[in-house]
Amino acid sequence: MEYELYYHAANPGRGEFIRLPLEEAQADYVDVAREPGGTDKMMRFIQDASVAQPQFAPPFLRHGEVIVGQTANILLYLGTRLGLAPEDEAGRLWAHQLQLGIADLVQAIQHTHHPVAHGLYYDDQKPEALTFTEHFFEDRVPKFLGYFERVLGGRPHMVGQRLSYVDTSIFFLLDGLRFAFPKRMQKIEGNYPGLGALHSRVAARPNIAAYLASPRHMAFNDRGVFRRYPELDG
Amino acid sequence: MEYELYYHAANPGRGEFIRLPLEEAQADYVDVAREPGGTDKMMRFIQDASVAQPQFAPPFLRHGEVIVGQTANILLYLGTRLGLAPEDEAGRLWAHQLQLGIADLVQAIQHTHHPVAHGLYYDDQKPEALTFTEHFFEDRVPKFLGYFERVLGGRPHMVGQRLSYVDTSIFFLLDGLRFAFPKRMQKIEGNYPGLGALHSRVAARPNIAAYLASPRHMAFNDRGVFRRYPELDG
Repeated sequence: MEYELYYHAANPGRGEFIRLPLEEAQADYVDVAREPGGTDKMMRFIQDASVAQPQFAPPFLRHGEVIVGQTANILLYLGTRLGLAPEDEAGRLWAHQLQLGIADLVQAIQHTHHPVAHGLYYDDQKPEALTFTEHFFEDRVPKFLGYFERVLGGRPHMVGQRLSYVDTSIFFLLDGLRFAFPKRMQKIEGNYPGLGALHSRVAARPNIAAYLASPRHMAFNDRGVFRRYPELDG
Repeated sequence: MEYELYYHAANPGRGEFIRLPLEEAQADYVDVAREPGGTDKMMRFIQDASVAQPQFAPPFLRHGEVIVGQTANILLYLGTRLGLAPEDEAGRLWAHQLQLGIADLVQAIQHTHHPVAHGLYYDDQKPEALTFTEHFFEDRVPKFLGYFERVLGGRPHMVGQRLSYVDTSIFFLLDGLRFAFPKRMQKIEGNYPGLGALHSRVAARPNIAAYLASPRHMAFNDRGVFRRYPELDG
């Protein structure tokens, strides 16, 4: 296998931002933690003190001798290699900047159900989760989605004239928000028609459609970044 | 001026991660928002719909025709240009990965005083801030600082054999944590002797020392990411 993706086997999570471009490009990759013994292999990079570039957390990617961690950084590395990012430096950095914005939003989405502490159960931080989510949809979601809609500016792609990993990331972001907050999203999606149309176009791409229908694709559940708690859905 | 840095004039904030490498390298730069009319100039990039690459938020950097946003992305762009990052791709991505980890920690530090909503006053989210900060120092701070100490591994620099922007970022991170949480940090800093020594070495570099003593350097205050609220200091 050319690429080894290391991410938790339990949910699509941030790993999905990496899987989508790999699938779109029909890259030769393995989802390590979903293979026998894969989780142990993944933990070695996190816990083994003798590793030269210790990893803080999944996802990370191995490509020959190169190891790259942090979702957006992995996409920066893969983008031009998979033909899913501009070739020129300014274009590459612009795509990366947008991906970092998506990462900021994803981080905030994590806080909708875990605003107090990663290490506590959702049930132990439910009142704070309700308060955070309310403000999040009042202030942050319109600011972020409005920004991405403005960047798209009625064009078919987020960056340049061709599909890039920023498009597949917007697809997954919307997918996750629709799963986690179906009622809230139905109310506001009309404000972001370009993003909705982009989501449909990405879903209809043959390699993406085949992936979504395959056993490689995991459904959302109650363990990932995107979780459906009806009481948070307003 | 070769480089134009756009960041709020009111506090050192995330802009300081950019200023430090610019100062270390004696780069020709201007801190736009601190010049007359600068804040208006900055807001144009955020609010003007006709801008080709609209910016979500400061900091961003202008270098000729290139505009780069997101703190870590700016450092990725500046790193090799200022001689403060490895030249090879794998080394550049490793430095960037560490900077993204620092950004994650900075984001969490913002949550210590604003866990519920950016848009609310600290006084309106004080109980949540206390709870968040308690868990933050119990779980996240040891995990992050322990990780950075492990990456340093007793060497003089975070990345490779020379000073990089990751070193100046660790300097500023520790500086900010010491300002915001003097008592908590005094208790735990002994666990991270390498990071403490790195902080001292960066502070002693002639260009950094000259900058810190200059009027260009802003002190921490009660408006930035790093804020001193004694009740959060345990």
